[in-house]
Amino acid sequence: MLILVSNDDGFFTEGIRSLAKALKKIGDVWVVAPDREQSASGHSLTLHRPLRVKKVSRDHHEYAVDGTPTDCVNLAINRLLPRKPDIVVSGINRGANLGDDVTYSGTVAAALEAALLGVPAIAVSAIPKNGEDEYSYDGAADFAAYLAQKTVEHSLEPYMILNVNVPSETEVGERRCVICKMGKRVYDDVLEERIDPRGRPYYWLGGASVKSRIDADTDCEAAEKNRISLTPIQLDMTKYSFLPKLQSWGLEQYGD
Amino acid sequence: MLILVSNDDGFFTEGIRSLAKALKKIGDVWVVAPDREQSASGHSLTLHRPLRVKKVSRDHHEYAVDGTPTDCVNLAINRLLPRKPDIVVSGINRGANLGDDVTYSGTVAAALEAALLGVPAIAVSAIPKNGEDEYSYDGAADFAAYLAQKTVEHSLEPYMILNVNVPSETEVGERRCVICKMGKRVYDDVLEERIDPRGRPYYWLGGASVKSRIDADTDCEAAEKNRISLTPIQLDMTKYSFLPKLQSWGLEQYGD
Repeated sequence: MLILVSNDDGFFTEGIRSLAKALKKIGDVWVVAPDREQSASGHSLTLHRPLRVKKVSRDHHEYAVDGTPTDCVNLAINRLLPRKPDIVVSGINRGANLGDDVTYSGTVAAALEAALLGVPAIAVSAIPKNGEDEYSYDGAADFAAYLAQKTVEHSLEPYMILNVNVPSETEVGERRCVICKMGKRVYDDVLEERIDPRGRPYYWLGGASVKSRIDADTDCEAAEKNRISLTPIQLDMTKYSFLPKLQSWGLEQYGD
Repeated sequence: MLILVSNDDGFFTEGIRSLAKALKKIGDVWVVAPDREQSASGHSLTLHRPLRVKKVSRDHHEYAVDGTPTDCVNLAINRLLPRKPDIVVSGINRGANLGDDVTYSGTVAAALEAALLGVPAIAVSAIPKNGEDEYSYDGAADFAAYLAQKTVEHSLEPYMILNVNVPSETEVGERRCVICKMGKRVYDDVLEERIDPRGRPYYWLGGASVKSRIDADTDCEAAEKNRISLTPIQLDMTKYSFLPKLQSWGLEQYGD
């Protein structure tokens, strides 16, 4: 089994190291990841400048690219790998990708790029220990390897991925997986205004009180209950149920 | 009618100027936009540093924020505006947001943030003139104002937006709108390898041949036919039809 690993936190992070190590037990692992953190600009393809690829290790298939996660997956599949991989696993992200934040995630974007190129993919993120900025990746990495194998066995449909969030408390082999839908992000008490020493205002968004609305059967609920969430995500964001309504607005009369 | 305008190309661009001007004919317009281009990092909220807001004009409601489009919309709705706006219009983006690229777009992200905060929203992008990097915004701006009014009259459902792409050739009042679904991005002949003067390889992605698969009834097809595309987009990316299949994989046996 040929496996491509990428992420958006960058090549030299604990999350991607743990993931690659766990996946080596089930297949031939190639790591192609950004040479620095790309959490903010992790989405688009780099079209306006060329990309450089650095082979990180002589003995292993490890490459650092000066681009986004999407660039890495594209370059790996279209050029670096000897053939189309059987699966792409993106992560392990330092921080959850739950609810609406999925649409903004570089970790998820790398997996979506694989789906666009016809390769099944999984995005894996670690949820910090309760209220702290502390992470552990062993449980997540082991579960990711298990899920990668299952995914290749059962196969996904085109233009979809699996999005997985694993609490840092999870031990290797521990059963706490829930299949669920995307939840809703809700920011409570979201904005704090302060005054600087020169008397001018500045604003903090989010602060400590970023919250999710805990709807039943969502990834947000799973995280709240300290479970591993597993959500099938599709590229197509069209709201089909609204198409007939929009047709009834009479927009063809524009210009009258 | 209270209207918030934002974008991801930045405050000082022709696209947002045209849009604000057209919308002033139908309501009270507030412009809150990034102080520089944010096309690459247009998605997430800025949580790790405070934001500064600069009032750009004394007579008009115009603010430049040193953050992302999402920051701008959040700050505007939660703090700057006198009340919740009736609608948010994001754009006009310099460049199309068609097919799968919708998931990566800062222009769309600004509209999605509005939807998350309970405000109806439209994302508007201009498609360059055939094969050139030349843009015209008047037709797009006029259509956006027409659509904004219609949207407030008919109202959207929660957690959705409208994504609009307008060919630069479009004249004010010209009827060429199509209601359609999201298409698929396809990159043909996607990667070019070159050798630098020191003999080392570098890679260009995409090049000149970025193409869309032209499926029927998609935004990509509309663009190909030089029509205005109008697509209802939802935040929820869950692939519901796959949930039962995933349940049948026996993942609860993990650890055996």
